[in-house]
Amino acid sequence: MKPAVILLSGGLDSATVLAMAREAGYACHALSLDYGQRHTAELAAAARVARGLGAVEHRVMRLGLGDLGGSALTDASIAVPESPTDGIPVTYVPARNTVMLALALAWAEVLGARDLFIGVNAVDYSGYPDCRPEFIAAFENMANLATKAGVAGMKLRIHAPLQHLSKAHIIQRGIALGVDYGQTVSCYQATADGLACGRCDACRLRRAGFLAAGKPDPTRYARSG
Amino acid sequence: MKPAVILLSGGLDSATVLAMAREAGYACHALSLDYGQRHTAELAAAARVARGLGAVEHRVMRLGLGDLGGSALTDASIAVPESPTDGIPVTYVPARNTVMLALALAWAEVLGARDLFIGVNAVDYSGYPDCRPEFIAAFENMANLATKAGVAGMKLRIHAPLQHLSKAHIIQRGIALGVDYGQTVSCYQATADGLACGRCDACRLRRAGFLAAGKPDPTRYARSG
Repeated sequence: MKPAVILLSGGLDSATVLAMAREAGYACHALSLDYGQRHTAELAAAARVARGLGAVEHRVMRLGLGDLGGSALTDASIAVPESPTDGIPVTYVPARNTVMLALALAWAEVLGARDLFIGVNAVDYSGYPDCRPEFIAAFENMANLATKAGVAGMKLRIHAPLQHLSKAHIIQRGIALGVDYGQTVSCYQATADGLACGRCDACRLRRAGFLAAGKPDPTRYARSG
Repeated sequence: MKPAVILLSGGLDSATVLAMAREAGYACHALSLDYGQRHTAELAAAARVARGLGAVEHRVMRLGLGDLGGSALTDASIAVPESPTDGIPVTYVPARNTVMLALALAWAEVLGARDLFIGVNAVDYSGYPDCRPEFIAAFENMANLATKAGVAGMKLRIHAPLQHLSKAHIIQRGIALGVDYGQTVSCYQATADGLACGRCDACRLRRAGFLAAGKPDPTRYARSG
């Protein structure tokens, strides 16, 4: 089996990506980033998901991204919004996908892997610049100039298989591949045991996705939203 | 003064870049990465250099890049070579410049800085793919698609002012700008107090640079090489 590095956050999207990469026949090396999140519930979820979906290994890298400030997800002094906001949300982590893909690239180079998977999708498109297809294409181009593999003519590929799927389609695809979404945590302010708030952007998107997919929502909520 | 993020390793090249950025009128925010180096002498050197050359601030981010293995600089089981080698040296850290620039980009976004400085140069060109001009250009293109600033049409620039300079020219330029190279550490296996081995690739390049520049070498060696 060819090795691949899968960025795994513990949320719904990246769990689906892991299932898709495995179905495509890759030996999946799952990478999570501990960048000073407010809660560690999603890292615990990532470990469960990696085991449940047969990853070859799962590593968590620590990174002091929170020291730089600038996001409600890493800076405790900024509140997580509980109603929809215009423009780029304060839950945006600066250059997050660039940083995560850079670390995935470093690991891929050590493993001799030429395939990287990331769970960006069309639903995120409006708010987050680093979720757009043109960003992924530009990163892939850069990666092929940055690495020994690229220099040797072995093309690296950044796979973003959710890119053009709605949340409902992602959920339908994941369920077909056996993903247990009850094990994933998407909430921006989940409790330490992984209970979701039901009110933040991530919770609203997720709940609407299950509704649109016509599937029962297995999310464990802290209270009835 | 416009803010800029300067990648500062504690070595000769990045100290020169900091002096050049400051001369160009930037408020310099210096960033060092602690990626599991064998020694911390270069981080101590980075702090000295940041102070000596008037950086606005200096931050050290920790990153478990060494956990991924693959380089003599982060993996203690691989020996640092003491004679010239062909091809890409084992002192290559996987995707290092990609990772460092990604973190600099994250900080730049928080600071509202649109200028990033990195000390890659032509001497490194032959061995390290991520020191080449085409890599820097591809990173800049990606960065402009990745960030709020880029989306808002405020162009980010990756400055690599040493790119086409020889080591001798770098040294002459730095001395003209008041860089005290006795405070910098380039050696791949420096002692805890920053004494250089005089034999590794970095020491050989550096020594030859002072010779070619016709300047006294202020490097503190552990023994006469």
